[in-house]
Amino acid sequence: MTPQWIESDANPKVKRWKRLCHDARFLRREGSTLLEGDHLLASALEALGRGEAPEIPAVMVSDAAAGPVRALALKTAECFHSGLFLLPARLYDEFSPVEHGIGLAAEMKIPPSGELCRDADILYLDGIQDAGNAGTLIRTAVAAGFRTIAAGPRTAGLWTPKAVRSGMGAHFGAKLIENVAPEALKAHFDGLIAAADARGGEDLFRSGPFAGGAVCWVMGAEGPGVSEAALAVADRRFLIPIAPECESLNVGAAAAVCLFETRRRRLLGVF
Amino acid sequence: MTPQWIESDANPKVKRWKRLCHDARFLRREGSTLLEGDHLLASALEALGRGEAPEIPAVMVSDAAAGPVRALALKTAECFHSGLFLLPARLYDEFSPVEHGIGLAAEMKIPPSGELCRDADILYLDGIQDAGNAGTLIRTAVAAGFRTIAAGPRTAGLWTPKAVRSGMGAHFGAKLIENVAPEALKAHFDGLIAAADARGGEDLFRSGPFAGGAVCWVMGAEGPGVSEAALAVADRRFLIPIAPECESLNVGAAAAVCLFETRRRRLLGVF
Repeated sequence: MTPQWIESDANPKVKRWKRLCHDARFLRREGSTLLEGDHLLASALEALGRGEAPEIPAVMVSDAAAGPVRALALKTAECFHSGLFLLPARLYDEFSPVEHGIGLAAEMKIPPSGELCRDADILYLDGIQDAGNAGTLIRTAVAAGFRTIAAGPRTAGLWTPKAVRSGMGAHFGAKLIENVAPEALKAHFDGLIAAADARGGEDLFRSGPFAGGAVCWVMGAEGPGVSEAALAVADRRFLIPIAPECESLNVGAAAAVCLFETRRRRLLGVF
Repeated sequence: MTPQWIESDANPKVKRWKRLCHDARFLRREGSTLLEGDHLLASALEALGRGEAPEIPAVMVSDAAAGPVRALALKTAECFHSGLFLLPARLYDEFSPVEHGIGLAAEMKIPPSGELCRDADILYLDGIQDAGNAGTLIRTAVAAGFRTIAAGPRTAGLWTPKAVRSGMGAHFGAKLIENVAPEALKAHFDGLIAAADARGGEDLFRSGPFAGGAVCWVMGAEGPGVSEAALAVADRRFLIPIAPECESLNVGAAAAVCLFETRRRRLLGVF
């Protein structure tokens, strides 16, 4: 397979990748995103092995990329039947989601949104506006065995290049559902809706059973916390007992504590 | 108190703040850092109330800042006996550690490094190169009751503006010690040195008692994990039992799980 050489700024593909990188609305309309780096592409190849293959129409490699990186580009393009494009570094850098990357990226079709399942665990992102945080939360959720991640209104796009990058491959093993209002969550989920609320609630560690059935953990944004609309559909509120000299945890740390306390109870059968 | 108006790029104070913002080596040599935003300054005022006052020689406010922000600038400058400086927005933005901030910053003297205490809990950062991650880890540690944070070689500066900002005020309640080699950690700490190692070790949730005495949690960088030198001084290694379809957790989430499992055991008296 011989890569196609692109050297003009005016090339429509380059223009498209630039917009995918910088314009979240365009990305959503086009239903495509950008993956960057060897780790994400290796994760995509693994997903292909599991039969959860994302569609990858194009693999892009910088002419400054090292030999093994070029080899990975070729392998990826072959496995996914993608177009393979070689670009001068200055052109590549215009759409690369990271500075000082390794010079390897791909365009990926965003898989169709899943639907909520009445009895599968959910992480619900309630107004998490930072794409990097959203991606890290997806990664933590999948690691804790929560494979459905639903995003409420005012949450960052889960498929933006930054969110995908922070997810470190977890996106490929997750079911992601965007624009789920709290009322819809309540209507389509039969398990326990548990809100993590720094303002009050049951002590997470001392509380009675909560992990026996499906759980949807609701995590709010830094500052405002869980929204009124999400609190209104929550069955129980939980508080992480932090040290008194500290004000709060960041949302990534708070989610890790809540999700892994759920996992701990299940692994130990103490619920 | 009337603020001093600065409008020239050539002003030596402006030059100094720019360097503090961008040059970690200069910051270390000068022993000063920059705080940005109302939240950090409010945290500094609270620390003053607790008698843990950092020294703040200068408060800087942009002429684009809103009225309440200017009022906070004035209050901070009065409480800390700082110089108060008003600058045009274009000049302020040159040293502001964040884009689109609220136009309020301060220069703070970095407090003298503490010393390791033989029997106080420690979070040890082993080669955490991202300053934002390091700051979040400090915040999580203080929230979990781990008030000493020690940084090994190749860890980001704990007092860089980015780390301080991610710490969200936790720096003021923490004892931070930089450049602690693993061997020095071993020599100056009598408690359990526990390494979080994704490659193997005791199951964190099923393991026997570890939280009864002082604990030093060792967290390694994304990718390489805990270094050989740090593993060599560790008394025990722990593995967080993540779901098999996921490769790893990010270091912030892993630290939250380990530190709060320690806190949980202590709060419940199960150790």
